[in-house]
Amino acid sequence: MTQQSELPKAILFDVFGTVVDWRGSIIEEGEQVWRQRGLDVDWPAFADAWRGLYQPSMERIRSGEIGFVPLDVLHRSNLDQVLEQFGVADFPDAERVELNRIWHRLKPWPDVVEGLTRLKSKFIIGTLSNGNIALMVNMAKNRGLPWDVILGAEVSRQYKPHPQAYLGSARALDLPPSQCMLTAAHNSDLEAARDTGYQGAFVCRPNEYGPDGQPDLEPSDSFEFKAKSFTDLADQLGCD
Amino acid sequence: MTQQSELPKAILFDVFGTVVDWRGSIIEEGEQVWRQRGLDVDWPAFADAWRGLYQPSMERIRSGEIGFVPLDVLHRSNLDQVLEQFGVADFPDAERVELNRIWHRLKPWPDVVEGLTRLKSKFIIGTLSNGNIALMVNMAKNRGLPWDVILGAEVSRQYKPHPQAYLGSARALDLPPSQCMLTAAHNSDLEAARDTGYQGAFVCRPNEYGPDGQPDLEPSDSFEFKAKSFTDLADQLGCD
Repeated sequence: MTQQSELPKAILFDVFGTVVDWRGSIIEEGEQVWRQRGLDVDWPAFADAWRGLYQPSMERIRSGEIGFVPLDVLHRSNLDQVLEQFGVADFPDAERVELNRIWHRLKPWPDVVEGLTRLKSKFIIGTLSNGNIALMVNMAKNRGLPWDVILGAEVSRQYKPHPQAYLGSARALDLPPSQCMLTAAHNSDLEAARDTGYQGAFVCRPNEYGPDGQPDLEPSDSFEFKAKSFTDLADQLGCD
Repeated sequence: MTQQSELPKAILFDVFGTVVDWRGSIIEEGEQVWRQRGLDVDWPAFADAWRGLYQPSMERIRSGEIGFVPLDVLHRSNLDQVLEQFGVADFPDAERVELNRIWHRLKPWPDVVEGLTRLKSKFIIGTLSNGNIALMVNMAKNRGLPWDVILGAEVSRQYKPHPQAYLGSARALDLPPSQCMLTAAHNSDLEAARDTGYQGAFVCRPNEYGPDGQPDLEPSDSFEFKAKSFTDLADQLGCD
């Protein structure tokens, strides 16, 4: 701990990249399942292109251009664009529905389930993700993630890094932001949370973007915690 | 099972009365803790009076008279009224804040934790309560309730038995109402849920209202399940 703060009551987590390996999971299921079902594409490039449309699609909501819609809806519309771009515009609708739910099946990094289980013994643990409630619940059921509560974009009706996403999640717990801590692998997320009063824990995920990626390797500021993994964070917070 | 329906994907629960013994818990904490802290009242009568303001306070929101506020806020305003009525209008504000959170500490019926844990192995389990998210999360942490997801009034922005409370909870799970089942000890709740397309499970809680109470002893209609307890429901649903 680099600053003197009271320990938080709730530890909330960014999910895509911090809890789960979205890129590795999409590539693996793509190559093992979807290639045989007719989607014979460069899966690393396909995963990157799909994820590449993530921020622009949410920006339309953050900017007020369109009203709030859940991330499953944005993912589907982005998938349709990427399929077009990869020359498979005739991919059947029923297959698109199932492929879009790949985000509900993403795999956690190896330290996650043990780390969350230990943190849960002393803290409220929850998601503070842009993923919608159904996505987060299905992912938790598929992968054994022991959340106490699903918060984030759908509860707050706004996408990170808009301040409302963080403030609405703290308000749902009836906690001041200072008693909430965001855990994330992304400095921009931690900075936006801190600007609303949250504490922060930086956890490095060096492989999130693959071999040529440029992950955040160090925290950009003196967030309260810096950890190598969720189990390391549990150690630092005294959770057996 | 009295009808031929596909099994639900999510089993959602009414909480006050069905999962927790609100009346017994308030009386017990009242007599053990609050009597010594200056609230020397007839605790069974106090519990009944406080709960008696529950439906009228929510009706102001269901009718559109006022906008949505979380149940903690209604409970506090109802508490202030009841204290006045019981002649203890000078009870300190800080004590009222803590007493109001008694709803976050209510005790489950004896079969609940085992029953929910078994049901969780095969189904999404969640709250479909009028209690707000903070209340439900704190109760779960205090009492070991293993919810997958907190739904209900605050997520749907409307109180049961308004149809929106049920429909908004199913929508958050991206499930049709027919794949959701409400479990409740109250026929009125089960009927309102069924009217939106939910399946239903009636679980009798004969002691909810105390020795002079008039609980629902039998289901008012042919809901899909009728069980003596959550463990009985888990048996009927094949959850070991």
